[in-house]
Amino acid sequence: MIERLAILGVGLIGGSVALALKRAGQVRHVVGYGRSRANLDEALALGVIDEIADRPESAVDGADRVLLAVPVGAMAATFAGIADHLAADVLITDAGSTKQNVIAAARAGLGARIARFVPAHPIAGAERSGASAARADLYDGRNVILTPLPENALDDTAAIAGLWQVCGAQVAEMAAAEHDSIFAAVSHLPHLAAFALVDELASRPQAGLFFRHAGSGFRDFTRIAGSSPEMWRDIALANRPALTAELDAYIARLSAYRDALAAGDAGTLMQSFTRASLARSRWQPGDTLEEDE
Amino acid sequence: MIERLAILGVGLIGGSVALALKRAGQVRHVVGYGRSRANLDEALALGVIDEIADRPESAVDGADRVLLAVPVGAMAATFAGIADHLAADVLITDAGSTKQNVIAAARAGLGARIARFVPAHPIAGAERSGASAARADLYDGRNVILTPLPENALDDTAAIAGLWQVCGAQVAEMAAAEHDSIFAAVSHLPHLAAFALVDELASRPQAGLFFRHAGSGFRDFTRIAGSSPEMWRDIALANRPALTAELDAYIARLSAYRDALAAGDAGTLMQSFTRASLARSRWQPGDTLEEDE
Repeated sequence: MIERLAILGVGLIGGSVALALKRAGQVRHVVGYGRSRANLDEALALGVIDEIADRPESAVDGADRVLLAVPVGAMAATFAGIADHLAADVLITDAGSTKQNVIAAARAGLGARIARFVPAHPIAGAERSGASAARADLYDGRNVILTPLPENALDDTAAIAGLWQVCGAQVAEMAAAEHDSIFAAVSHLPHLAAFALVDELASRPQAGLFFRHAGSGFRDFTRIAGSSPEMWRDIALANRPALTAELDAYIARLSAYRDALAAGDAGTLMQSFTRASLARSRWQPGDTLEEDE
Repeated sequence: MIERLAILGVGLIGGSVALALKRAGQVRHVVGYGRSRANLDEALALGVIDEIADRPESAVDGADRVLLAVPVGAMAATFAGIADHLAADVLITDAGSTKQNVIAAARAGLGARIARFVPAHPIAGAERSGASAARADLYDGRNVILTPLPENALDDTAAIAGLWQVCGAQVAEMAAAEHDSIFAAVSHLPHLAAFALVDELASRPQAGLFFRHAGSGFRDFTRIAGSSPEMWRDIALANRPALTAELDAYIARLSAYRDALAAGDAGTLMQSFTRASLARSRWQPGDTLEEDE
C-alpha cells in the first residue's frame, strides 16, 4: 500500500496511474502538482488526485512514492527542484519516452540519492491529453519498460515494477541505451519522417492540390504527423545520439533508392521492396503494443 | 452500349470494370486476356468475362472498347502487340497509376492511332487481387483521373469519361505531368519511404527486438510497406523523373532535421513539426480518395 503518492504532471499519463492505483486500492493519498492550475482543479474534482500542491517540493514532502510524468524536456528542472525535499525511504519513477537523457537529469538533480530512482517508460497513450482524459484502465495489458540503474537495490526495482503491475501493465527490463536505440528506430524516426513529409508538401504552392488527391496510404503514413510538436521536439532532442544515427541510416537508404531509381536499377528496388513487404506482412501488429510515444 | 469490350489484364481493376459495366447493362460482350490461364478460367466461371482470348491481338479483334489493366511495366509490350489489330473506331483506355510513361508507351506502340487512346487512372484498389476479387461496386464514388492527349477528339474523351462514370466513378481531368507530380508526392514517395524504413530495420541483427517493440504509430506508418513489390517497382520506374525529384526534396528535409538535431536547434524542429501537425490536423481524410495506388 502506498501511503502518499506525489504525481508531478497530472495529465493523461500521470492521472491514469493515480486512477489505476486507486482502482486496485493500493494508494491512500495522491498529491498532484502541475503547471496548469485549471487542470489540477479538474483532477481534484474528478477524484484523480486528493490534494493539490502549490510547488513540486511540497508535493513530494512526506511522499513514499513519486511519479515524474512531466515532458522529458522538463525532467531536469523537476529532479533538481525536489531533490532536497525527498523522504529518506522514497522511491521515484518516471514516465519519460526517453531514458538515458532522463537518467542523466536524475543523476544531476538527485546526486547521492540517485539510487531512489527507478526509470520507467509506459508504452501507452491516447488521442486526448490532460487530467480529464485519465483512465483507470489505460495501462491494462500495456507494456512498461524499466531501465534500472546499477545503484538500484533489487527490492526497490521490484517495488516499482509492482507499482506498474498493479496499474495493469506488463513490465519488462532492459538497459537504457538499448531502450533509446529501439525507440529511436521504431517510434522517434517514424514520427520525424511523417512530420518531414507533411511539412514538405504543405510548404509548396500546390499544397491544396496535393492534399486533395491524397488517399488512404497517405492518411495512415502521416497520421502520427498530427502529434504534439512540443512533445516530439522534446523527445527528439532528448534522444539525440540514437535518433541522429537513425536519421543517418534512413537518409542513406533513401539515397540508395534515389540512386537506383536514377540509374533505372530495377533489381535493387525489387530486392529492398520485397524484403520490406515480407517483413511487414509477417509482423503481427496485434502482438505488439497499442501505442508508441 | 459497348458491343465488345476487350480487357487486357483481368485482375481486380480490369475485372471490376467488366462487372460494373455489366451491372449498368452497358456492355454486350467482354473478352479477356491475361498471363494466367487459371485466372482467366476463374473470370469466365464467375461471369466477369464472357470469352477468353489466347492472345492480346485476338482479344481486341473487333472490339469497340479496349481497357489495358496490365502493370505499368507491361504497357509498352501490350500497346505494341495490339496496334495492328485494332478496329478503326476503337477507343482505348487504361488503368495505369502513372501517366506520362504509359502515354509514351502508347505513342511508341500505336503510332498514328494514338488519338484512339484516352489515358485514365482509377484511384481504387483493395487488399485482394485477381479476377476473383473483382467487384461491380469497386469504382462507386471513387475518382478516376483522365489525362487526355492533344490528339484526342472531345467526343472520344467524353466517351471514355462516360465509360468510367457508368462504372460509378467521378471523373476529373488534368495534364499527365501534373498527375504524375501529384501522385509522386502523395502516393509514390510515401510508399518508398515506408519500404525504406521497414527494410532498414528488418536488415539489422536486432530486427526481432525492433518489431517486438513497434506500436501503433509504426503500424500505420508502415502499412503500405506490405504492398506488392512488383507493382511498386514498376510504378517507381515509370514515374522516375517526378519521383526522383520528390526523393531529393524529402532527403533534403530529413537532412535539415538531422542537422538541426545535431546542433540542438530546437526552434527549427519546433517550427517544422508545428506546420506539419497543423496541416495534418486540418486535412480531412474523409474528403479524399479511399485508396491510392
